[in-house]
Amino acid sequence: MAQKPSIPKGTRDFSQKETAERNYIFNTISGVFRTFGYRQIETPAIENLSTLLGKYGDEGDKLLFRILNSGDAFSGVGIENFREEGDTYNSKALSLKVCEKGLRYDLTVPFARFVVQHQNEISFPFKRYQIQPVWRADRPQKGRYREFYQCDVDVIGSKSLVNELELVQIVDRVFSLLGIKVTVKINNRKILTGLSEICGFPDKVVDITVAIDKIDKVGLDAVKEEMLERGLSDRAVAVIEPVLTLSGTTEEKIAKMRALMDGGGAMGLRSEAGLRGLDETEELFGLLREAGLPSGLAGEGGASAVELDLSLARGLNYYTGAIFEVKADDFPIGSICGGGRYDNLTGIFGLPDVSGVGISFGADRIYDVLKGLDKFPGNLDEGSTLLFAVMGREELRYVLPLARILRERGISVEVYPEPSKLKKQFDYADRKHIPFISINGSEEIASGSLNIKNLSSGEQISFPVGDIAGILGFLS
Amino acid sequence: MAQKPSIPKGTRDFSQKETAERNYIFNTISGVFRTFGYRQIETPAIENLSTLLGKYGDEGDKLLFRILNSGDAFSGVGIENFREEGDTYNSKALSLKVCEKGLRYDLTVPFARFVVQHQNEISFPFKRYQIQPVWRADRPQKGRYREFYQCDVDVIGSKSLVNELELVQIVDRVFSLLGIKVTVKINNRKILTGLSEICGFPDKVVDITVAIDKIDKVGLDAVKEEMLERGLSDRAVAVIEPVLTLSGTTEEKIAKMRALMDGGGAMGLRSEAGLRGLDETEELFGLLREAGLPSGLAGEGGASAVELDLSLARGLNYYTGAIFEVKADDFPIGSICGGGRYDNLTGIFGLPDVSGVGISFGADRIYDVLKGLDKFPGNLDEGSTLLFAVMGREELRYVLPLARILRERGISVEVYPEPSKLKKQFDYADRKHIPFISINGSEEIASGSLNIKNLSSGEQISFPVGDIAGILGFLS
Repeated sequence: MAQKPSIPKGTRDFSQKETAERNYIFNTISGVFRTFGYRQIETPAIENLSTLLGKYGDEGDKLLFRILNSGDAFSGVGIENFREEGDTYNSKALSLKVCEKGLRYDLTVPFARFVVQHQNEISFPFKRYQIQPVWRADRPQKGRYREFYQCDVDVIGSKSLVNELELVQIVDRVFSLLGIKVTVKINNRKILTGLSEICGFPDKVVDITVAIDKIDKVGLDAVKEEMLERGLSDRAVAVIEPVLTLSGTTEEKIAKMRALMDGGGAMGLRSEAGLRGLDETEELFGLLREAGLPSGLAGEGGASAVELDLSLARGLNYYTGAIFEVKADDFPIGSICGGGRYDNLTGIFGLPDVSGVGISFGADRIYDVLKGLDKFPGNLDEGSTLLFAVMGREELRYVLPLARILRERGISVEVYPEPSKLKKQFDYADRKHIPFISINGSEEIASGSLNIKNLSSGEQISFPVGDIAGILGFLS
Repeated sequence: MAQKPSIPKGTRDFSQKETAERNYIFNTISGVFRTFGYRQIETPAIENLSTLLGKYGDEGDKLLFRILNSGDAFSGVGIENFREEGDTYNSKALSLKVCEKGLRYDLTVPFARFVVQHQNEISFPFKRYQIQPVWRADRPQKGRYREFYQCDVDVIGSKSLVNELELVQIVDRVFSLLGIKVTVKINNRKILTGLSEICGFPDKVVDITVAIDKIDKVGLDAVKEEMLERGLSDRAVAVIEPVLTLSGTTEEKIAKMRALMDGGGAMGLRSEAGLRGLDETEELFGLLREAGLPSGLAGEGGASAVELDLSLARGLNYYTGAIFEVKADDFPIGSICGGGRYDNLTGIFGLPDVSGVGISFGADRIYDVLKGLDKFPGNLDEGSTLLFAVMGREELRYVLPLARILRERGISVEVYPEPSKLKKQFDYADRKHIPFISINGSEEIASGSLNIKNLSSGEQISFPVGDIAGILGFLS
């Protein structure tokens, strides 16, 4: 009995149409990356677990796909490894014994590993992009997959804010080309650090950011409540509250924040880190203006609005400077792109003090936005241009050299593989969206001509077989 | 203590240069596939083990990378599963219990699974290509990797030999574009079946093909010896021997073989299968001639010689018609491309009687051939076109809008991220093979001009900043 074929939960097949649409996204993104001087690298899907474990928190460790050692994976494992007290198995220890490798969980940690491993072959600042699948043993659900693509662009070995500027320009250019209006939210981790310092809880920066990150979803009161639950005092919350309701232009926000960080808060505390974060942010918005990107103004000079959002935190603890997040204005799907600066990413692999900044485009969500807004171009080269209908052996012999010439000119040509009824061949062209069909019989063969019909307009022209330029013109 | 980073044995990182070179191969191959009407699909890296197991023989099952079930993989496993007699563990059964998924081993079985699973969405004949990595737990060695790319092109749902013709044309075109001279060897599984029938050992077709497949390596006498060892009689070997020493043109070989299959052998046996195989082969070589590909003549009308090789078997048991193998003429590395027709590939997944034919390009070996013969083009877009040197804040402000305009015109531009000594910026351009540098100071800013230097010729021109056409012309 034959098996009913299926694929694992959370994975997908991509049809020819979907692959063409996905390639359109990848090609648009990588084309923009290239104009900014970034070049592609690839790393293996399989990494040593020692490279991956501990880099994504306890939750991340659980979501790693582990690969059973090849050969006899269980041969070196004694019965004592299978149980702890009470005949239960120590699954975590056991899986470490029988699995040394895992599937890539993101592109950032493998990139850090790459930089350290190849540091002597790399010219810094090193600008690379990487478009590859990653795997996570997450619970599959709508819009969340176990195998999905990330498109990462990072520069490492330069602290200049020109890099942050260019990343925002890349975002603007990509979504402008894709026809998606977006808002780029910018914050700075040092400002968040500053907040924790001026409210007197410098060790609570994570608690504070986790709480304020939710303000769009739960509102001001709930955020204040959560901060209290997380151990902040009433006075501390009172210091932070004005930040959460800050209004005005970016310049006005920065000015108000600067006063606050400079000892102007309710507790009179000052934060050097916060002031540095504000300097960086002001400088970045200045560069954006000079390069022709609006700050806080949708649609001017690009597809994007850029705004300062002091509640933007993103979960990742390794950001040390700018933090970015991009949302589509007209389609509710969460963040479609995000990133930030990290000062010590390669430190975990033994190369300290190399600062980098990067962003990651979520190709799958961008796909959903383009589908939802019906923004995919109509001409994604899903089908061939011309079908040679074939009525018999003589006609086949006649068209084969012509098919060859047209293909060598880059035209996508199909020769119907066996003599069949014309209706069947027309149906084939129709189903595969082939716009031109060439039907030739003894008359065309005798006169050395080629008959081509445009299936959408109905126009039909007969060319001398040698008139390749004329044929190419009609097909284009 | 930081870990020393490494990657698993048999996997590779690809630098920017290597990635550009590999993309050149993939783009050349996929571009040719497209002109023949093939379109791309993708399948997940992770397949259910039930899809993969048993499809590649016992040896293949051992070489599958298995993925540990997520969550607590060992929780449902009792102590009784861990041992057979004598306190040894039943590794095979245990790995099946804790691993339900595995990594793709080739692109053919996932393709068969795809066709069956999506049969109602597909138009037949279905022409698809697929360029994705596969994984095998092979012993790593020079030129053999555990993660490597395959480039497969297959058409399914058509028995016409026009498909075989087009696959040979694809091979010819790909290697012609890559500048590699190759020989395409063609055989037909039905001729091999015929051989086993006319020598009186119809059940020994595998033994016979395994033996004669080695003739290039071990010579005639060793092949005869092996056939005897594999249970053939002296008389049977005497029937096969003339096939192994067959000479002449393709037409002459086919004529001699036809006489042999028609009862003209030493035992007087006749093989219908063998005669059908010869008919197909004759027809295919006829089509190749008509389409402008030489049979057995190197270099005429293409990069390829095409020859009938009756000792060509290839290990794969699922071929039922034509068998192809491609070798580089000027670089000894084994087969760089191969394939054939299979009449029942999808039968294992419940869809019988769908005939297909396809070939697979080995991208890694093709890479080695191009490297070995020094055939990679010199202009593989490894670096940016223009570097804006930056001397200070004013110069940065001046060049940012220009960088933006040039990037939007598709030029790959870098802005040196921080004001530095000119020597350092020149070194950067040099290391990254950036051919043009633009250095602007207060003079250029005052006069609204842009100074660009061609670093290889030394030519230096000053353009008005508005003269984008002139700038683009100089950079191109």
